[in-house]
Amino acid sequence: MLPVDLPGTVREALLAPLVDHHCHGVRRDDLSRAEFELLIGGEDGSPSPPGTTHFDTPFGAAVRRWCAPLLDLEPHAPPAVYLARRAELGAAEVNRRLLAGAGVVAFLVDAAAGDIELLSAAEMGRHGGAAADELVRIEEIERDVAELSEAAIDYLDSLGEELSARAARAVGLKTVVGSLFGLDFDPSRPATGSVLAAANRRLADPKEPLTDPVLLRHLLWSAIDVARERGLPVQFHTGLGGSALDPHRADPARLGAFVRRLQPLGVPVILLHCYPYHRQAAFLASVHPHVYVDVGLALPHTAAGSARVMDELLELAPFHKQLFSSGCHGVAESAYLGALYYRRALGTVLRGRLGAGEWSSTDAVRIAHMIGSGNARRIYRL
Amino acid sequence: MLPVDLPGTVREALLAPLVDHHCHGVRRDDLSRAEFELLIGGEDGSPSPPGTTHFDTPFGAAVRRWCAPLLDLEPHAPPAVYLARRAELGAAEVNRRLLAGAGVVAFLVDAAAGDIELLSAAEMGRHGGAAADELVRIEEIERDVAELSEAAIDYLDSLGEELSARAARAVGLKTVVGSLFGLDFDPSRPATGSVLAAANRRLADPKEPLTDPVLLRHLLWSAIDVARERGLPVQFHTGLGGSALDPHRADPARLGAFVRRLQPLGVPVILLHCYPYHRQAAFLASVHPHVYVDVGLALPHTAAGSARVMDELLELAPFHKQLFSSGCHGVAESAYLGALYYRRALGTVLRGRLGAGEWSSTDAVRIAHMIGSGNARRIYRL
Amino acid sequence: MLPVDLPGTVREALLAPLVDHHCHGVRRDDLSRAEFELLIGGEDGSPSPPGTTHFDTPFGAAVRRWCAPLLDLEPHAPPAVYLARRAELGAAEVNRRLLAGAGVVAFLVDAAAGDIELLSAAEMGRHGGAAADELVRIEEIERDVAELSEAAIDYLDSLGEELSARAARAVGLKTVVGSLFGLDFDPSRPATGSVLAAANRRLADPKEPLTDPVLLRHLLWSAIDVARERGLPVQFHTGLGGSALDPHRADPARLGAFVRRLQPLGVPVILLHCYPYHRQAAFLASVHPHVYVDVGLALPHTAAGSARVMDELLELAPFHKQLFSSGCHGVAESAYLGALYYRRALGTVLRGRLGAGEWSSTDAVRIAHMIGSGNARRIYRL
Repeated sequence: MLPVDLPGTVREALLAPLVDHHCHGVRRDDLSRAEFELLIGGEDGSPSPPGTTHFDTPFGAAVRRWCAPLLDLEPHAPPAVYLARRAELGAAEVNRRLLAGAGVVAFLVDAAAGDIELLSAAEMGRHGGAAADELVRIEEIERDVAELSEAAIDYLDSLGEELSARAARAVGLKTVVGSLFGLDFDPSRPATGSVLAAANRRLADPKEPLTDPVLLRHLLWSAIDVARERGLPVQFHTGLGGSALDPHRADPARLGAFVRRLQPLGVPVILLHCYPYHRQAAFLASVHPHVYVDVGLALPHTAAGSARVMDELLELAPFHKQLFSSGCHGVAESAYLGALYYRRALGTVLRGRLGAGEWSSTDAVRIAHMIGSGNARRIYRL
Repeated sequence: MLPVDLPGTVREALLAPLVDHHCHGVRRDDLSRAEFELLIGGEDGSPSPPGTTHFDTPFGAAVRRWCAPLLDLEPHAPPAVYLARRAELGAAEVNRRLLAGAGVVAFLVDAAAGDIELLSAAEMGRHGGAAADELVRIEEIERDVAELSEAAIDYLDSLGEELSARAARAVGLKTVVGSLFGLDFDPSRPATGSVLAAANRRLADPKEPLTDPVLLRHLLWSAIDVARERGLPVQFHTGLGGSALDPHRADPARLGAFVRRLQPLGVPVILLHCYPYHRQAAFLASVHPHVYVDVGLALPHTAAGSARVMDELLELAPFHKQLFSSGCHGVAESAYLGALYYRRALGTVLRGRLGAGEWSSTDAVRIAHMIGSGNARRIYRL
Repeated sequence: MLPVDLPGTVREALLAPLVDHHCHGVRRDDLSRAEFELLIGGEDGSPSPPGTTHFDTPFGAAVRRWCAPLLDLEPHAPPAVYLARRAELGAAEVNRRLLAGAGVVAFLVDAAAGDIELLSAAEMGRHGGAAADELVRIEEIERDVAELSEAAIDYLDSLGEELSARAARAVGLKTVVGSLFGLDFDPSRPATGSVLAAANRRLADPKEPLTDPVLLRHLLWSAIDVARERGLPVQFHTGLGGSALDPHRADPARLGAFVRRLQPLGVPVILLHCYPYHRQAAFLASVHPHVYVDVGLALPHTAAGSARVMDELLELAPFHKQLFSSGCHGVAESAYLGALYYRRALGTVLRGRLGAGEWSSTDAVRIAHMIGSGNARRIYRL
């Protein structure tokens, strides 16, 4: 799994258990080929054009290359063979093999409440032989509150209470404002009057996803308040994690003004995925003491090309500001490949730095531990 | 031409004839040094500063390195020697050598009507020993219609008719809206009233390039209608192919909202050139079933650096979504170098994937055929 | 310092003295650990989070790797050892070793007037065994004028006079409009009435940094007038050199419309730093005859990853359009590492091009001389 020619100490550091600080549950049920293809075919879940397959992607090729052996198949097994063997073993066994194979010591899980097809945080931990903690997605709380509120003032009160209550059981908050609106929102806290007006509109149609920028900002600032009180970090989906809108509006650079406002509050901001804007994210992490960065989903999805992505992140991001996550969702393959390509990519980068005489092996070992688990333990107080 | 250490089957697949799905005619006449420099010096065609030469560019160095031997010169021949030999052989012979040397089985040509200095589509095919089909540039049709129309209503009627008539003889449509306005246009179909008003303004000055955003949107949506009826794809110049305006406004990410509107219509959208925004283009191609991508001009113009560009495209773009084009224009060198750097770059990328054990040789062969010709045959129904 | 396997002539060309066409003074006094960390921790100068250190960055690792031996220490010396030795030698000796070690023949210095903690241009030259010339930062002139003017009309007159007077002693002008406002300013020359109104507002609060877009544009256009009269180039901080605002607003692509307006005036525009938007900068340099580019600060700050940054710049930028600068500021380590990583990165790029048979050694030698000093001599008329 790791590149050759790495010193033994560096290999050990890379193979040490990881903290996967951002992941989603994976499906507990057996999947048809069409279902499996939809789950690996990008977040929007469109089928590939007639006559083509989502296996013809870097991620699909990686499933055949690296996951096949965990299901007792040869590397590069054809899609039909892979899926037949997957069905034969059954989802529970496949999930156990792949989640345990990821070599993770703790999963921090954004577990959508009520989606019984997905493993819960606790189940992710059990299957993976790891601890598990919860992340709270603030837009999910808002949806629950909107559906139960009758008046704007109740809605606003309940929102604050529910955020506090859910945060009390979580290790971090997260937001998908990038995919609901974009990261180019007005960074100021919205005025009470405009929030009330927007809340009234919202209650007319509470089942729709929240896209009103005033309420999204109110929600975000309320979450910041809670995070500040409780010392929790706030994760932002950016880059290819925010695919519903124009890609450039999910560029983390657009968070610049908002991030500057948060600096005096000391709330850690964690930029997730980021690709293809990971250099911009690394830049923000390098100039703002409270900004952190990972490339989550980007590594298993760029797969054979992931070493360059990691290398570009390491061009500028401070070593104490980077985190590992798989960003996994839907299929356990994404958790396994997330960890595998993280280790391969970082291994390739470290081999390059060591070979060029730039970093010492001691540096490399320390950096691998920081990014793989140490930084997450510090920030999430695990 | 290809990197060493590639398996024989992969070499063969890379050397197989290509479909060049987007190119322009090249000059049929002998060129002075000043003319040649202007043609290789970027789309705007400014001379290089006093005391400098456009040969001092990656493209210029590539002409000396790779085209010189086709004119019986040593690699790295000095510019003056190269141009003297080019003149000695004559444009017809040079065009034949370079176009045939490209190893192309079919050219899809955006042939500007009436520009007798440029080879027509049929001539490109003859010189290159290949089939040739036409692409229709919708802004050229609009200009013709504007010059011949007397009233707004005639203009609008003729525009629809002419688009249909020209599309009937073509394999695809293309637009340069990115360089005339930018890709950040309002994605909605414009209202009839505003189109009529804009058409009236347009007829006052029909010889100017069309920059009015309402008419450009009307033209684009009319072209989409025609493309949908006839099952034709629509090509968009993006990135370094749209140089007349601010580069960031030619970022294909700006097409995100428009592309989402087209998804239910099933009209294939092909993003041309894309560099330096090719990762954004690959992302769009990965989430939208109707979006395709190439890096056309970017390969011969990044030349010695083109393998990284190809590698970055292959980070995320599905293999069934990528196409080869030379984007050639002006000089036959650009057609030859387009094909050469496509093969070299893809060869380098494949060698890397094979060497790392990521893809099998069978995968590599299949991917090379898909990108080099198979995808184009499917999309353009060749 | 250079990669192995380079031909001797290319090594010589890379080791030839450089013109550092953009740098700042470095501190003349002995620095505490906290002061040193602030100076290496990005332009905003925030301390790193508790329990972390700015030495855990690519730049910090590079200080330990490459500067330690110049202070008679082993490579990779721990931070505490490095700083103890630095204090032992004293700032003057450290500055001499590092500045002389940079191998620079001429420094072009943006020397903040009145900041007595920083070496002046003349001192930079003396310590580095080099010539030294001055760059005029136009926003500094504006601040001086604003503080001394009593009425708007005086302010405007004095601004023009002072720009002319200071330009007479300088080799170039520079602007930080990117960090004060952003590069997405209205490219037109502002109307006199609006300038007068803005000047009146300005004089109410002359000690604040100038952020008014009308006055910034007036200042910029006034500087362009002076530059045109005197044949001077104008430098623009872009990319990571303009960190105070949203990163994407420091993308040099945003200067596209302004740059087009300057083209007929013939004033050279030099894009500094640029990263992570250096490909966009290279594109502008490739299509506009008056646009030049460097990656200054980006090389020492990406350090072990700098070869890729240089390689990406060389994908498209004409060889006669690139310049070397260290962008150094604060500590002499940044001047030394700027030169070192420039040479290492360019060496790595050239080795790749030579190994692939793309460029000849003669080409490589000539390109190294152009970028290292020749282009700067031509543009700044040194």
